[in-house]
Amino acid sequence: MKLHGKNLVAGQWETGRMGLPFQATNPVSGEKLETVFQEATKKQADTAVTQAGKAFQSFRLKSPGERAAFLETLAETVEEQADAILAYAHLETALGEERLRMEMLRTINQPRLFAELIREGSWVDARIDLPEPGRKPVPRPGMRSMLQPLGPVAVFGASNFPLAISVVGTDTICAFAAGCPVIVKAHPSHPGTCELTAEAVIKAIKAHKLPGGTFSLLHGKNHEIGQSIVRHPDLAAIAFTGSLKGGRALMDASAARERPIPVFAEMGSINPVFLLPEALRDNMESIAEGFFRSLTMGNGQFCTNPGVLVAIDSPKLDTFVERVAELIGKATPKTMLHTGIHQGYSQAVHSMCGNPGVRIRARSGVAPDPARLEAEILLLETNLENWSNSPQLRQECFGPASILVRLNEPDEIHQFANNMEGSLTATLHGTPADLEVFHRLQVLLEPKTGRIVYNGFPTGVEVGYATHHGGPYPATSTGAHTSIGIDSIHRFVAPTCYQDCPDAQLPTELKDANPLRILRKVNGRTTKETIHP
Amino acid sequence: MKLHGKNLVAGQWETGRMGLPFQATNPVSGEKLETVFQEATKKQADTAVTQAGKAFQSFRLKSPGERAAFLETLAETVEEQADAILAYAHLETALGEERLRMEMLRTINQPRLFAELIREGSWVDARIDLPEPGRKPVPRPGMRSMLQPLGPVAVFGASNFPLAISVVGTDTICAFAAGCPVIVKAHPSHPGTCELTAEAVIKAIKAHKLPGGTFSLLHGKNHEIGQSIVRHPDLAAIAFTGSLKGGRALMDASAARERPIPVFAEMGSINPVFLLPEALRDNMESIAEGFFRSLTMGNGQFCTNPGVLVAIDSPKLDTFVERVAELIGKATPKTMLHTGIHQGYSQAVHSMCGNPGVRIRARSGVAPDPARLEAEILLLETNLENWSNSPQLRQECFGPASILVRLNEPDEIHQFANNMEGSLTATLHGTPADLEVFHRLQVLLEPKTGRIVYNGFPTGVEVGYATHHGGPYPATSTGAHTSIGIDSIHRFVAPTCYQDCPDAQLPTELKDANPLRILRKVNGRTTKETIHP
Repeated sequence: MKLHGKNLVAGQWETGRMGLPFQATNPVSGEKLETVFQEATKKQADTAVTQAGKAFQSFRLKSPGERAAFLETLAETVEEQADAILAYAHLETALGEERLRMEMLRTINQPRLFAELIREGSWVDARIDLPEPGRKPVPRPGMRSMLQPLGPVAVFGASNFPLAISVVGTDTICAFAAGCPVIVKAHPSHPGTCELTAEAVIKAIKAHKLPGGTFSLLHGKNHEIGQSIVRHPDLAAIAFTGSLKGGRALMDASAARERPIPVFAEMGSINPVFLLPEALRDNMESIAEGFFRSLTMGNGQFCTNPGVLVAIDSPKLDTFVERVAELIGKATPKTMLHTGIHQGYSQAVHSMCGNPGVRIRARSGVAPDPARLEAEILLLETNLENWSNSPQLRQECFGPASILVRLNEPDEIHQFANNMEGSLTATLHGTPADLEVFHRLQVLLEPKTGRIVYNGFPTGVEVGYATHHGGPYPATSTGAHTSIGIDSIHRFVAPTCYQDCPDAQLPTELKDANPLRILRKVNGRTTKETIHP
Repeated sequence: MKLHGKNLVAGQWETGRMGLPFQATNPVSGEKLETVFQEATKKQADTAVTQAGKAFQSFRLKSPGERAAFLETLAETVEEQADAILAYAHLETALGEERLRMEMLRTINQPRLFAELIREGSWVDARIDLPEPGRKPVPRPGMRSMLQPLGPVAVFGASNFPLAISVVGTDTICAFAAGCPVIVKAHPSHPGTCELTAEAVIKAIKAHKLPGGTFSLLHGKNHEIGQSIVRHPDLAAIAFTGSLKGGRALMDASAARERPIPVFAEMGSINPVFLLPEALRDNMESIAEGFFRSLTMGNGQFCTNPGVLVAIDSPKLDTFVERVAELIGKATPKTMLHTGIHQGYSQAVHSMCGNPGVRIRARSGVAPDPARLEAEILLLETNLENWSNSPQLRQECFGPASILVRLNEPDEIHQFANNMEGSLTATLHGTPADLEVFHRLQVLLEPKTGRIVYNGFPTGVEVGYATHHGGPYPATSTGAHTSIGIDSIHRFVAPTCYQDCPDAQLPTELKDANPLRILRKVNGRTTKETIHP
């Protein structure tokens, strides 16, 4: 596969070679991949955002149908390029063909799903309060409002989803669907995958004669290029998926801007799994197997990986631990995504194992090979007091390790919930009787978690209307928003209200005739009816 | 009127006198009002937030009907206290009985409006994606989500709305409606009005046997007490209405927290009014009168005060300026809200008038009396170049002053729109032909303003479904949210998603039977239907 390693600035591959060179690494072999990429310069970042600001003026005025057609073409151009992208993505990430093919399916479905959403059109949340010219003491004006795009969005892709949360991942697709140009900061661990995907984006942009500034792809191994993008005055919003450290740096950078802008960062989450007594008694075997599968899925490199098990001391819990230990013992370590993640995991695990209150309950049978960036699979154990007093144990450990917090008595489960940080998910394994007895646990979890899973496991997020992949800090920067699911488009829009606006000047969605036949809230009533002035 | 000047900490008036004493001032006479208030201590702030966190656990579980009944009682207890509150509010603010009585009406209507909203119940945005157990390759789980309250909210009231944006203003009422306890930081310019209103809140809280931590009122003249509230780990959100400086300080304080929390600050806005040529030709007289009324309403102390006029040079514009000058010349200066605002206005006006590119076109005929905190009414004029290059002219000047930016040619109107900062409103005076010719102006204004007003004036905000009282920074901290209108409740909630949750454990709003008969989105379709599992 011949790549050129260049930056895409406002729709053009830059020909000059000015930035610092870097190469991606094959995580399995440790060998550097052939293509030399160059980091983008500050000037390129400035141009990309400035041009995005210019492109916004026309891109946001495209009709929903035109934007939908663009997204559908994008799905096609990515699909045409899929085999090449998949082959390269495996070289750069070692995620395996099967997993990557599943991810590609989701990646191609996403633009189609959002095309459907914006073609239908009701998502803009049109509201119409009719005027009352005769109201006393003053007439009531007519007010209409709808969601409109914010402007250029910077997207920082994730290393663990090189397709579905990267160049044409949810963030980019939502931004395009809303009418926002995108500047992608390519993840340095899979720059080639990014380049190949970006080629598909340009094809779609050219096919629809959109301005070049609609899309840029900038490379960078260090944080400077990201900071240059984030500091640019024309930028309107930031989307990020990755570590707490990386996300917080972007939050801080936005807060330090002259004009702060919204940062939608999906960061660190412990995703506790609560094993309630009856469920453990009745379904120990299937819970153990399900837990093992969830823990090791994607080699533990999921934001919803179950990092903590919480259960009340009992003989059945010992049997459960033995069963999990057996499964882990038979498993072989797998290669992690890149050196940074491997190092972070090794250090976190080393520090957790060094905690005097922590016991190692299970480890993968074969020793991991650090040269191949392999991760040991681990089940650790501690008690509530030690967990509560050890900051290291209370935060996300990104990889296939989980820690069992063994409780001495039932009420400790509420103390755990009270003390835990915000999390993307929490999981309850409970019979109907368990769930009734521990109802207070659910109540405590509701304000702390974005999604509560019952008798299942947190890995794998459905893309739907009810999806909420969010949660209070440190799980995300803004717990009210979701980075996955239909509602994720709401991150990149804000309402505009029109007071006493003549019909001719109103956006199509708000006109009396309701030409798009969308659902609107008229005087508070949800309806598709037209308005007779 | 006998007041005690104490802090209300978690429902109890504190008896100790530990904080620093301060008194409010009658802005007209300059005399200190009798009651000595004491600033809250850091310990009191800590207790207030801690107790709010505890109260949250039970307050959030009240049914919508129970919360609605509480809000209705609150409307009654405030109404009972209304005369006493109004009399004291006039002493502290000099806003006049008529204006304050109108504001009181809005203040009492608001809890009733939100009681109605939460009783009806559909606002929680319930979503249900039904499971597909037979889906390949993996079954689709059932997902349901709804909005839930965030936790304790700190409310920093505004000095210019001592009733409707203060102790029981929109922020407090929305927070209560959502299920969030409230800690109000009383505005030091009207502490007595705050105390009297807080008495009404306690009555309602006692009548409904709610925990004391549901509400606190803390006094403080300096910023320390506000910072103590904002830094408290149990705080979940901040609402503020006031100056850019004050709002930005809260944004920065939140960004510096270990766990940043959302800040909803409504800050500085220039609210430009564009006079398009034909409208000026046809309706000069009524526009001049409307503009004068809007400029001087509430003595210019509205966040939507029209701070900038934009018009293309023409003889008719001269006539317009003459007419406005005539109206201003006949007007008498009025007392401002407090020393701080009067000082800020005087300094801003002094600096603007000192700008060599600025001409004074009109000033109120009688000289203002600084001892009575009177504000001169002013119309200034400059050109686009000078306006663009003078930061002082481009930001909000809080008071009854406006600056005309006289354009040399039509296209300069687009340059103005391109260069202006985010604003709560923009107003267009245009005939149908004007609006067609200057369509690009509207397009440029959409991403920069929360509300576009046609052939009217920006002061006065309707409380409705379509209301958006927001706008990009510096108008607000988060342009996607509104601080006035039905949607303002969305600031204090975030979705919780339930995956494969048994019906018995689901919140009432998400149960199969839909017992509250609310509108829900089921598999993407909006319906009140029940679900047959």
